Amino acid sequence: MKTVIVGGVAGGMSAATRLRRLDEHAEIVVLERGPHVSYANCGLPYHLGGVIAEREALLLRTPASLGARFGLDVRIRHEVLAVDTAARTVLVRDLDTDRTRSETYDHLVLSPGARPVVPPVPGVERALTLRDVTDTDRIKAVVEGGARSALVVGGGFIGIEVAENLRLRGLAVTLVEAADQLLGPLDPEMAAPVAAELAAHGVDVRLGARTAKVLPEAVELDDGTLVPAELVVLAIGVRPDTALAREAGLAIGPRGGIAVDGRQRTSDPYVYAVGDAAEKTDPVTGEPSLVPLANLANRHGRIAADAIAGREVRSLPAIGTAVVRVFGLTAAATGWNEKRLTAAGLPHRAVHTHPVSHAGYFPGAERMALKLLLDPADGRILGAQAVGGEGVDKRIDVLATAIQGGLTAVDLADLELAYAPPYGSAKDPVNLLGHVADNLATGTTRTVQWHELAGALAGGAVLLDVRTAAERAAGAIPGSLHLPLDELRDRLPELPADRPLIVHCQVGQRGHTAARLLVQHGHDAANLDGGYLTWAAGTSRP
Amino acid sequence: MKTVIVGGVAGGMSAATRLRRLDEHAEIVVLERGPHVSYANCGLPYHLGGVIAEREALLLRTPASLGARFGLDVRIRHEVLAVDTAARTVLVRDLDTDRTRSETYDHLVLSPGARPVVPPVPGVERALTLRDVTDTDRIKAVVEGGARSALVVGGGFIGIEVAENLRLRGLAVTLVEAADQLLGPLDPEMAAPVAAELAAHGVDVRLGARTAKVLPEAVELDDGTLVPAELVVLAIGVRPDTALAREAGLAIGPRGGIAVDGRQRTSDPYVYAVGDAAEKTDPVTGEPSLVPLANLANRHGRIAADAIAGREVRSLPAIGTAVVRVFGLTAAATGWNEKRLTAAGLPHRAVHTHPVSHAGYFPGAERMALKLLLDPADGRILGAQAVGGEGVDKRIDVLATAIQGGLTAVDLADLELAYAPPYGSAKDPVNLLGHVADNLATGTTRTVQWHELAGALAGGAVLLDVRTAAERAAGAIPGSLHLPLDELRDRLPELPADRPLIVHCQVGQRGHTAARLLVQHGHDAANLDGGYLTWAAGTSRP
Repeated sequence: MKTVIVGGVAGGMSAATRLRRLDEHAEIVVLERGPHVSYANCGLPYHLGGVIAEREALLLRTPASLGARFGLDVRIRHEVLAVDTAARTVLVRDLDTDRTRSETYDHLVLSPGARPVVPPVPGVERALTLRDVTDTDRIKAVVEGGARSALVVGGGFIGIEVAENLRLRGLAVTLVEAADQLLGPLDPEMAAPVAAELAAHGVDVRLGARTAKVLPEAVELDDGTLVPAELVVLAIGVRPDTALAREAGLAIGPRGGIAVDGRQRTSDPYVYAVGDAAEKTDPVTGEPSLVPLANLANRHGRIAADAIAGREVRSLPAIGTAVVRVFGLTAAATGWNEKRLTAAGLPHRAVHTHPVSHAGYFPGAERMALKLLLDPADGRILGAQAVGGEGVDKRIDVLATAIQGGLTAVDLADLELAYAPPYGSAKDPVNLLGHVADNLATGTTRTVQWHELAGALAGGAVLLDVRTAAERAAGAIPGSLHLPLDELRDRLPELPADRPLIVHCQVGQRGHTAARLLVQHGHDAANLDGGYLTWAAGTSRP
Repeated sequence: MKTVIVGGVAGGMSAATRLRRLDEHAEIVVLERGPHVSYANCGLPYHLGGVIAEREALLLRTPASLGARFGLDVRIRHEVLAVDTAARTVLVRDLDTDRTRSETYDHLVLSPGARPVVPPVPGVERALTLRDVTDTDRIKAVVEGGARSALVVGGGFIGIEVAENLRLRGLAVTLVEAADQLLGPLDPEMAAPVAAELAAHGVDVRLGARTAKVLPEAVELDDGTLVPAELVVLAIGVRPDTALAREAGLAIGPRGGIAVDGRQRTSDPYVYAVGDAAEKTDPVTGEPSLVPLANLANRHGRIAADAIAGREVRSLPAIGTAVVRVFGLTAAATGWNEKRLTAAGLPHRAVHTHPVSHAGYFPGAERMALKLLLDPADGRILGAQAVGGEGVDKRIDVLATAIQGGLTAVDLADLELAYAPPYGSAKDPVNLLGHVADNLATGTTRTVQWHELAGALAGGAVLLDVRTAAERAAGAIPGSLHLPLDELRDRLPELPADRPLIVHCQVGQRGHTAARLLVQHGHDAANLDGGYLTWAAGTSRP
């Protein structure tokens, strides 16, 4: 049995090594267009910044080492030009000799990845993209050639990593994003601190801006602004690399990726597809989706190998959990965000909190912003987002695990998470999300979202700030009354009896206590979810 | 309605504040024997070491602040002497005035905590324990009085934290533990690095040793050794403080804690018990258990309040997740360990791995030891342990969540955890546990545990080391053959054909590849689980 694998990075190489462990006697040929296989593609931006100093550190494996360890026939600089599914052959060109030959297969695994999207603007040929080690070399050469200014197009994960790393190299960096926020997987109030962190480290962030023209040493934006840019990097997203699959007549799915079944099998029973080029299944809608993440590429490579080896496999939807470092900040998300839920018309409830990463009395505790999205009907967790320092990745991993374990939002209250003062709190941030969800589910509390506040006030509600005078002095929501929580019981007569109250504190916790108090004294009171901090993040516009 | 709460720390204060939020009009009286309420008991050891510099940082709340915020009637230095469940009264002594009075209740919540166990050895009166702020003051006074030597009895979580913090203050510290390992919740091969870390930071760790006599400036151990100890701290464990409950005729459970139902209600329908004094339910056996942890005290305080307020509550077994910092190391565990499973005769399978905390090519990656315990019949996760640096708490939290979500060990392979090079790997350590579990479940791999190795070799098996020569030079298992993995295919004829092979590498991963290769070439081959590192940790004896 002979398996040919097209693409020798995450998904392809996972399939190859797993297949070898399952079948010592299989013939396994890996054809890679580029000069490297099994490189650390997620590490590429960090090599630009010198964080990963040695280029060799990115090259985890060589064809020789893969041959010795796994008996793989790995051929770099071999481009597959065509697939003949009827004859079960691929046409391969050796890019060094320029010779073309046909290679037979019993099973074929396509792992061609995704291509960076290039916008059709004048002069874009000068712009670089970052997909592989060769691309990294190109960008590094410009940096080391003395470039002092760079413009990065696209404020997603890769764009932010590239911007951070170019800044670490001392360049003047402009980050241009067409949307009115960075990091599309996050909602705007959660993404706001990311823009602020980049700005604090000297990155010039331009939201709602598009590249109109790439000039020789600058970029012209759509508002006519000229931004100096000796280096231009495009990171506006990727598209599945489906050229080969299309030409072979394989089915392409509705999202533009290669259509696969639960065994990663394409429309041809002998051809599998894995990684960024293949479509996934969305956990909420059950429909095809595109999720270009390395962990899924690896998972699906393993599934393809198991299927080829005749094993039972199990297919799961792709939740899509991702994280990015932004200087001293970590931003992470899993599942659906509120923008998407709203756009799809799916009922949802949002919970915002601002817990500290570990016991507040233990040195080094950092405040984070957490957001949970749930289905109000059954409490199912639809998604979560977190931004902050220490412990952000931990909480998103716990929440992603809760989603996969089918826990409801209320179940989060009962999770037994490891607590000692350096690591968390006796009531962990994730537990607190569960408490809030429970209070909402039982009607114990009612919340107003930051983006609903203006409407509610316009409709006659009164906003009541229950923070301390010092907190209020550091920033307040216009038009609010002030009555500190600890004086509330004694000063109830000062409140208007006939108008709905919206209470707020700094993060939402004291607001909850105040709202409970007020409701039980006969007021119509709701709590501003996430308090002043969420409102301030949501209404900030850099 | 009047609720009296006995004990004003974790469980008691959670019950009090939750009850207030649910019922603004309830009368809530909190009676606390000591001079402080709602203090940071988990932070006490760190105040000894100066890590938490200010004593005030430990005192999160005062009776006055709790009164202002929550309308609680908090009385410190009020000791409850007796409960009359028929009359629904408690007899209370004001320790300042020495006056005694009776207090009525509609509902009573007992949250008396647990008392440190004091061994009945001569001179033990001089030894101190660490339960509250006053105890901390006492120990601190000895340290600040110029003590240069300290002996800590008990190598559990508290003993280790106290030893670390006294060492941070520059004392010569001896840690004495009767068992042959530290940290009972961990298995010996997982606890070994903790002893090594303490030793590396100058703590004199004595395993298998008991205190025979406490002398004026030293301690005599049971082997006759004299250890200088101007300060002696006892941390050999705690026992539920059930005196009041017993005298009131409340049912005491089989483990010696106050027996409660799923609503935290004792044998008397108007009396609830929460926190360390109350029994929990074990998730594996369904039987009563004792789990003295702050997060459970808080959870159960909330349940008691909900029950008193007439709400539906949901009771869950206590898995028991815990973590401790040991200088630069983190050790954490959840669920059952292998010792306990073996002692109970419960079938189980162990998986050991040694993954890095984040992508190996990104600076700062640290190797950790992970252990998973599962039920071989259905793959249910029974417990997990982790020891290392960065990311240990994260992995245990994910595994604890997986347990509560009912995920099987194999399900771990498919968890979508947040990956970027600073945070994890495309195949996260938790995913890898799932892969190994899958390989074991499907018979793709067979493993031998570190403690089974000697027996297997005595029975005729041959041990094959497939590491590099450099790794082998740094430490090898006696009697092993050496044949590096990358040469294995070419050197198969050198292996004995008629004897079972046990393969090992450094951490178990290459061993798996080698075992798969050998089995498919007709050998009887198993992989040493966790490789050389687990074997070395398991067989090390300080």
